[in-house]
Amino acid sequence: MTIDYQLIIQELNPITIIQEAEKIKQLSLDYYYFSPILEPKLKEKTADLVVIPTTEEEVLKIAQICVKYKIPLTVRGAGTGNYGQCIPLNGGIVLDMSELRKIKWIKSGIACVEAGIKMSVLERETKKQGWELRMIPSTYKIATLGGFIGGGSGGIGSINYGQLKDRGNLHRVRVVTLENEPRIIELRGDETRQINHAYGTNGIITELEIPLAPSYNWVDVIVTFQDFISALKFGQDLADSDGINKKLISIHAKPISNYFTSLKSYLPNGEDCALLMIEENSLFALEDLVKEYQGEITYRQDLDLKSNFNLIEFTWNHTTFHARNIDANITYLQTFFFSLEKVEEMYNYFGDEVMMHIEFLRVGGKAIPAGLQLVKYTNETRLNEIIKYHEDNGAFIANPHTYILEDGGRKIIEPEQLNFKKKVDPYGLINQGKMRSWDIDN
Amino acid sequence: MTIDYQLIIQELNPITIIQEAEKIKQLSLDYYYFSPILEPKLKEKTADLVVIPTTEEEVLKIAQICVKYKIPLTVRGAGTGNYGQCIPLNGGIVLDMSELRKIKWIKSGIACVEAGIKMSVLERETKKQGWELRMIPSTYKIATLGGFIGGGSGGIGSINYGQLKDRGNLHRVRVVTLENEPRIIELRGDETRQINHAYGTNGIITELEIPLAPSYNWVDVIVTFQDFISALKFGQDLADSDGINKKLISIHAKPISNYFTSLKSYLPNGEDCALLMIEENSLFALEDLVKEYQGEITYRQDLDLKSNFNLIEFTWNHTTFHARNIDANITYLQTFFFSLEKVEEMYNYFGDEVMMHIEFLRVGGKAIPAGLQLVKYTNETRLNEIIKYHEDNGAFIANPHTYILEDGGRKIIEPEQLNFKKKVDPYGLINQGKMRSWDIDN
Repeated sequence: MTIDYQLIIQELNPITIIQEAEKIKQLSLDYYYFSPILEPKLKEKTADLVVIPTTEEEVLKIAQICVKYKIPLTVRGAGTGNYGQCIPLNGGIVLDMSELRKIKWIKSGIACVEAGIKMSVLERETKKQGWELRMIPSTYKIATLGGFIGGGSGGIGSINYGQLKDRGNLHRVRVVTLENEPRIIELRGDETRQINHAYGTNGIITELEIPLAPSYNWVDVIVTFQDFISALKFGQDLADSDGINKKLISIHAKPISNYFTSLKSYLPNGEDCALLMIEENSLFALEDLVKEYQGEITYRQDLDLKSNFNLIEFTWNHTTFHARNIDANITYLQTFFFSLEKVEEMYNYFGDEVMMHIEFLRVGGKAIPAGLQLVKYTNETRLNEIIKYHEDNGAFIANPHTYILEDGGRKIIEPEQLNFKKKVDPYGLINQGKMRSWDIDN
Repeated sequence: MTIDYQLIIQELNPITIIQEAEKIKQLSLDYYYFSPILEPKLKEKTADLVVIPTTEEEVLKIAQICVKYKIPLTVRGAGTGNYGQCIPLNGGIVLDMSELRKIKWIKSGIACVEAGIKMSVLERETKKQGWELRMIPSTYKIATLGGFIGGGSGGIGSINYGQLKDRGNLHRVRVVTLENEPRIIELRGDETRQINHAYGTNGIITELEIPLAPSYNWVDVIVTFQDFISALKFGQDLADSDGINKKLISIHAKPISNYFTSLKSYLPNGEDCALLMIEENSLFALEDLVKEYQGEITYRQDLDLKSNFNLIEFTWNHTTFHARNIDANITYLQTFFFSLEKVEEMYNYFGDEVMMHIEFLRVGGKAIPAGLQLVKYTNETRLNEIIKYHEDNGAFIANPHTYILEDGGRKIIEPEQLNFKKKVDPYGLINQGKMRSWDIDN
C-alpha cells in the first residue's frame, strides 16, 4: 500500500510539518557516521515527512494518523545519538519532539518535563532551586531528556548515580501508544524499564518525571601523569574515594590529548591525563590524591578565570568527535572492563591502534572503568577482530557499529520490552528494524 | 613525684574545675561497661580533677600546667565511647571539652567549629543553610564532633561517605600540643591522619573544619522479611542501588527486634528486619526493591505522623544499648565481613549465641556488611573463642573489648601517628596507656 502523503499532510493540519527534502534529510540523521560500518548503511536513509508537534494532543493525533495509514514513525530528540537510534530505515514520518519542551514543575528534587526539553535548559531552571541533573551526556547543551532516556545509557554523573536504567533514576513517564486507538499510558518506577533505552521502539515518550541531584560547585580540573597506568589507577582510586565529591573521571592515554587542540596549553605534549569535575570543597583532598600518583594539576577552572571551554565537551563521546575532526579515519568502541588489569592488558596488546579512553562509572554499586577507546580504522574485518579479541578475553563490548538493539549493549531484549511493544505498537510502526526480536516474531 | 592538686587548682584559676569526687568519677567514664571484659578493668578508674575550658587559650594554659607538673591528661567529649577511649588510667586531669563549643562559621558546604560542639546542635545550624553532617554516630544528640573524630570511625551516612579517616572527610584541625612550650598547630588534608581515631593520644583537638553533605528529606522506614538472609541480601542490594538515596541500612536477625520495645507495633514478632533512612524521593524505588525481596514495609515515618521515636537510636551501638536494657548479659562484637557469604556462614555457625546485626557502609568505594553482633556472654574464654573463630575464618574483628588502640581496630599504629605523638607529647602525658607502641618505646 502506497502512502498518499498529500492526504496525510492535510490530515495533520495544523501541526507543523517539514516538507523540504534537504531539511527532512537533516532531521533524519544523527552522528551515525562516527562508525564507518554504519555510515554506508544509513547515509541515504530519510523520512518522507518530519512532523513537529507542540502538545501531547498533537502527538496523539499523529499517532492516530500513523495507525490509520500504517505509516512508519521514528521519534527524534536532538539527533545526538551515535548509532542511528533515530534514523528511519523505511521512510515514513520522523516525529521531532524538540518543540514539546515545557517544564511542568520542579519541586524538592524532582522535575516533571515534556520529553523534548534540552537538558541544558532544564538544568538552568533546576539550579535556581539548588538542584541539577543526576547525569548528562557530553551533548547536554542540545540533547533532549527524552532522547537521553530513549537512546542513552549514562554519562557525566554516572560515577555517582549509575546508569539511567538503575532503579530510582526515572520516576514516571507518559507514553503515547500506536494501538488501534492510540492512548496515553503512565509508567511508574520499575514499570519504566519497559521503555528505557529502547530507541523509542515501543511508544512515544511525551513526559518524564526525574529525580534531581543537589547542585554543587563543580570545578573542571586537568591532571597529567607520567604514564597511562598511573592515570588509570588514579582514576579508580578517585572513583573509590568516598570522601571526595566528583562528577566526572575521564582518563586518556597518551596520543589522545593531542586531539584536544583547545586544551593545548594544559596538555602541550599530548600527555596521559585525567579530565575531572571535582566539588570545590574536595579540591584539597584531590591535591593529596594527585600527589600520591605523582600527577600534576595543569588546569583548575577556579584559578584560570580566562578559560572559556567546558571540559565536559572533551569527554565521553565528545572525545571521539575531537579526534575525528583531526583524523576522520578514527572510530571507537564501547567496552565494560570490570577491572584495571583488563584495561592494562588491552592497552598493552593493541598499542596505538586502539587508544585507551576510559570513563569511570558505577555499575551495581561499584565504580568500574568503561572504555570509549579510539580505534584507527582500517577495515571491517580488522574492526571485528578487535571486537572479538576483547570479547574472547573477558571484556564486554556494547558494539556501537550497529543500529540493532540486540547487537549493541543489550545482547537480548528483555521480554518485558518485547511484550510492551506487542501491546503498544501492534502494527510494528515505531522505529522499524531496530528491535530484531520483534522482526523475528512478526 | 606526687602532684599537689591544691597548687594546680590555684594555677588553673579562673578556669572551671570540678572537684566533687562523685562528679569527677562520672566525668571519667564512658560506656565501657558494654564490655564485660573492660568493666572490671575500668570501673574504678577516675581522674583527680576535671577541668572545663571555654576557650582555646584556656586549653593552652591547661597544657602548660600539665607539662610543668607532668600531670596525666585525658581529653573527653561527651563520653559516649564504648571502649574507655576517654577513661583516665592513671588519674590526673580530665579535660572536658563540652564548653568549647562555638560555631566559627558555616558556608557553602563547610563548617568550622570548636571541638566540643554537640553534633545535633551543629546540624541544627547547618540545616538552616541546606546542609547536614556527612556522618553521625547513633549518639549524635549528645556526642561531640571532636570526640567522634578522636574516638569514632563512622556511622549513619557512612554508606555514602565511607569512614571518618577517608580522604576528604576532614579538612583541617587545630591541635594544642604538650611540648615543653605547648603551642597550637594546624593540620590540613592528609596531615589530619596523624590525629584521626587516636583516642586523643597525640594532642588536644580544639577546632575542626569539616565538609558537609547536602541536606535531604530523610524518611525512617522499617521493613520486615521472611528470613534473615533475605533481609541481608536486600540490604546489600539497596546499598548497591546507585539510583536510590539512603543514609542508613541497618539489618537485624530475628531475636534482636524483640529488644526494641518501643518499636513493638511495627515488629510484633521480633521479625528479621531492616531499619532504614531513605530520601523521600527514593521511596517509590524502595517499594519496588522491597517487593523483589518479598519484604513488607511496616513503618514509614511520613505516613505515621504520630510516631515519636528516632530510628537512628535503634541502630549502630544503640542496638546493643537496647538489648542490654533487657538482658545485661549481652555484649557485642565489631566485624568487617567483606562478603554476604561470610555473614551467612557465621550466622549459621553461631545461631542465637551471636545474634546478627549488620550495618552497611562504604569501604574503599564498595558497600560492605559490617557486624555489630550481639553476643550472649558466658565467660572471657568463650568470647575469645568466638573472636578467634571469626578471625580464623576470614572475618576481621575490631575488638571492642580492649582500650588499647593496637588491639582494637587498627592492629598496628601507623608510624605517622606514633611519630606525631613523639613530637607533640614528648612526656607521654596524654591518655596514658592507650597506645602500646608508645609505651614499648618509652
